[in-house]
Amino acid sequence: MERIRTTEVAAHVGERVCLAGWLHSLRQMGGVNFLVIRDGWGLVQAVTESEAEMAPLTANKLSVESVIAVEGLAVSEVQAPGGVELHDLHIEVITPIQEPPPIPINKRKITAGMSTLLDHAVVANRHPARRAIFRLASGMMAGFRSFLTAQGFTEIQTPKIVASATESGANTFKLDYFGKPTYLAQSPQFYKQNMVGVFERVFEVGPVFRAEPHDSTRHLNEYVSLDAEFGFIENHFTVMALLRDVIAHILTTFSEYYAAELDLLHVQMPTIPAQVPDIHFAEAQELILKLHHVDVRGEPDLSAQDERWLGEWAMREFGSDFLFVTGYPMSKRPFYTYPDPQRPAYSNSFDLIFRGTELVTGGQRLHRYEDYIAALAKAHIPLEPFASYLEAFKYGMPPHGGFAIGSERLLMHLIGAPNVRLTSLFPRDLTRLTP
Amino acid sequence: MERIRTTEVAAHVGERVCLAGWLHSLRQMGGVNFLVIRDGWGLVQAVTESEAEMAPLTANKLSVESVIAVEGLAVSEVQAPGGVELHDLHIEVITPIQEPPPIPINKRKITAGMSTLLDHAVVANRHPARRAIFRLASGMMAGFRSFLTAQGFTEIQTPKIVASATESGANTFKLDYFGKPTYLAQSPQFYKQNMVGVFERVFEVGPVFRAEPHDSTRHLNEYVSLDAEFGFIENHFTVMALLRDVIAHILTTFSEYYAAELDLLHVQMPTIPAQVPDIHFAEAQELILKLHHVDVRGEPDLSAQDERWLGEWAMREFGSDFLFVTGYPMSKRPFYTYPDPQRPAYSNSFDLIFRGTELVTGGQRLHRYEDYIAALAKAHIPLEPFASYLEAFKYGMPPHGGFAIGSERLLMHLIGAPNVRLTSLFPRDLTRLTP
Repeated sequence: MERIRTTEVAAHVGERVCLAGWLHSLRQMGGVNFLVIRDGWGLVQAVTESEAEMAPLTANKLSVESVIAVEGLAVSEVQAPGGVELHDLHIEVITPIQEPPPIPINKRKITAGMSTLLDHAVVANRHPARRAIFRLASGMMAGFRSFLTAQGFTEIQTPKIVASATESGANTFKLDYFGKPTYLAQSPQFYKQNMVGVFERVFEVGPVFRAEPHDSTRHLNEYVSLDAEFGFIENHFTVMALLRDVIAHILTTFSEYYAAELDLLHVQMPTIPAQVPDIHFAEAQELILKLHHVDVRGEPDLSAQDERWLGEWAMREFGSDFLFVTGYPMSKRPFYTYPDPQRPAYSNSFDLIFRGTELVTGGQRLHRYEDYIAALAKAHIPLEPFASYLEAFKYGMPPHGGFAIGSERLLMHLIGAPNVRLTSLFPRDLTRLTP
Repeated sequence: MERIRTTEVAAHVGERVCLAGWLHSLRQMGGVNFLVIRDGWGLVQAVTESEAEMAPLTANKLSVESVIAVEGLAVSEVQAPGGVELHDLHIEVITPIQEPPPIPINKRKITAGMSTLLDHAVVANRHPARRAIFRLASGMMAGFRSFLTAQGFTEIQTPKIVASATESGANTFKLDYFGKPTYLAQSPQFYKQNMVGVFERVFEVGPVFRAEPHDSTRHLNEYVSLDAEFGFIENHFTVMALLRDVIAHILTTFSEYYAAELDLLHVQMPTIPAQVPDIHFAEAQELILKLHHVDVRGEPDLSAQDERWLGEWAMREFGSDFLFVTGYPMSKRPFYTYPDPQRPAYSNSFDLIFRGTELVTGGQRLHRYEDYIAALAKAHIPLEPFASYLEAFKYGMPPHGGFAIGSERLLMHLIGAPNVRLTSLFPRDLTRLTP
């Protein structure tokens, strides 16, 4: 008999069907055996009082997570999860397991501490609540790509082994490349800019590597970056408008195709306004002085507390979970940042604040070769390591800009996870290298 | 006036339109100026006899690759490329360029040698023939993903910094991870197998790293791997059937959405038979003896010459560009390979041969924990570095298998490029680290 998926059983009530998957749970109550079978898509309950039917499991004292095939009659049953269950079972064991896993994955709540959970991620990620997170992760990538593709963007894949560090040597992992010192890419920044000269509009979904010695709830040393870059923009507001639409599309993708996952994770999806409110960096500092009597004017960046205050203000003032802060001081932004033509100490850059936390950084970049030469000289950075990157500007680049979304971090904030490690399949941090 | 794309001009004949892009070429013939404007999508010709209209370019002796906006009247013109051109021009310079690029990108043929071409890839990739290749690369990824997603596969992203080398320590790049020795992932093999326990069917598109000191036309040290892995297979033939359908879908994607690119590159797309012919490794060696009087029986692998002979035979015998060779000897396959239950010296594995060259490797993997313990012991490989990987098998895994496609290599063979470096945006080889 052809195997069907657990999610297809409801459409076969009254027929005998065959499922294959893992023995998710097994309970005995008053002589009745309740089995739950988990496959790649969902769960279905099977019920029997017959010892003979149960024999393939009981004879060898099989444990949960045994891989089995179960044939049975699909029956409507209001009490059963999903409203359907299997009766008159024929069980076949595919991979017998005697010992239950170190982390119970059939309890509604995961009770293990985070460290234990991550140590056993290869098994713990089978838990329905963990699966739901990583289905959303796949939906986020798909939503990002489908929106940008529809907007004429071309997907690229750029090298992760690079000859020179993108932004600062301090936070890069060093690599021995056939005896030559090299680095792991901190971002596809240079390549995506160069590719604006080829396709005008490009995006990349790929790993980036940060050797930051942070042990925080929101840093990973390897993460998946959703990068976009495009040409013929007016300024950073063009980039902000695109980013707003990208996030709106990801939220729509979640609501349309991942309702079950959102439900399981008890997630209240935010809405993003058609026009996200924005405030200039300098005004934001004035606002903080006015509202909270703390004078942060002159600081080159916003603190976490500043961001929280601004987030609260955006919610109070505009009912918005999202807020753009624009015009960060040039002094804190990388050399390729485009200055505000009116106020050159500030930049044509932005951060997107979500519920009081920075989520995405982006902006307009320099596009004239002379401007790069001047910016590098001003920052006392030698030209030579950037010769190849700069060649694109030497031969014609339009005004352009883009942004980079840390996918695990965005997901963490959207679902309200307490730690970014929980939205990474196999996180890498200061001490964690396995699994 | 709102800018439109070059590909949209034909729909606006009789109207004034505005284009923005690069000055792709500029010719004067008998007092008539022929400009070609290139944007992210195509090329359009603009024509004028007026020196005043040309002044923004001529006044500053601007060169090709200057970034410009051109407003003009869209006119039907059979002689013009694409059947349409612009008249009555208003030219505005966005980024002036005085010096043409080191590699002409407006000649039909790229005359530069490969090394020069790759040295200047940030500009050379603007050439329409280069662009066409990388559009196809994006189409290959999209086709791969869309087919597998429709088959119930979930996309995953697994770590590239790993604590233990996947297959053999010899070909891995070593990395300093906060003082700990680590490696760059040679493949997502272990993780994608582990994830079969979570989602049953998974795929990944991502970089892999091979420290192979090969200076060949078909090796890169970093490439984009299209990986798939799935559970509840019967044996490697289930995997071969899926791979056949994946490739068929990629070919269909190319024909349907990338006809212009195929045309520009003069590519004759192959067709893949509904049932790709297959031959067992041992029979293949017998066949070579019979047809070519060369006795390769007992060799543990096929040589490049063997593959060419088999490719010719498949074409002669079945009219097929594709051939599966199955059952490679266990001795040459990695420890997780599933042996042929009937002939345990051979494996449930395959290579896909395309026009006489190996293109994809795949097969069935071990799924029982005891089998892993025995296989590692037999190969004298210590268990400890694989403890986390093996945990998934300890707690129930179904029969499963998969494959990995080197995307640059597949593209190279499909378009008939002479060197795999030509199908990588910014290739990494023994000596090449920039751009």
